[in-house]
Amino acid sequence: MFEKNLEMSFLLDFYGDVLSERKRSVMTMYYNEDLSLSEIADEIGISRQGVRELIKKSEDELTTLEQKLGLAQKSVIARECAERLKALLTDCEIDSPVKSEMLALAEALENNT
Amino acid sequence: MFEKNLEMSFLLDFYGDVLSERKRSVMTMYYNEDLSLSEIADEIGISRQGVRELIKKSEDELTTLEQKLGLAQKSVIARECAERLKALLTDCEIDSPVKSEMLALAEALENNT
Repeated sequence: MFEKNLEMSFLLDFYGDVLSERKRSVMTMYYNEDLSLSEIADEIGISRQGVRELIKKSEDELTTLEQKLGLAQKSVIARECAERLKALLTDCEIDSPVKSEMLALAEALENNT
Repeated sequence: MFEKNLEMSFLLDFYGDVLSERKRSVMTMYYNEDLSLSEIADEIGISRQGVRELIKKSEDELTTLEQKLGLAQKSVIARECAERLKALLTDCEIDSPVKSEMLALAEALENNT
């Protein structure tokens, strides 16, 4: 099982909707709400080992998906580009209406990723 | 089965790597190389009905993935924003080094989606 980490939390956020409701719920409790295995076990009424296995299977699903598609990594790069573009545009001297449209586009790109 | 269409071809391009090698191969022949069911059946040595079923299952996988994640649709929107941004930047009067960097970022965003 992964250490609780930002990377898995990001993959959960990005691909979590492919998981079954039960798996997504357990992963959310573990990674986003920072519950322990025992607390999750009590919450959903299965053994601690059962929780551990659900988390492991979910992590494998999310990791495999990213290994195959690489879309989460692309999204990180796109966000960095959009943020840098927005910063450059903000500091730039351009005719106002065009600048507004460009800034809106850069923001849309930032939020879309 | 879907009509051969651009939408499925796009989903295949976007999520195709999640399919098994066999399914991806059949889908590529059908959607990208425009082979008929009979031609694919001859090519891989299964029945025409077998090919039809593989295509149907693959389409369901790709469609379900997009229904859950919506990343292909987001990618289309991001590309449109990046193209528009690039066009505005190209026509804009800005200091040259900054303009070059912004254009490079817009292009990176266009190609990353």
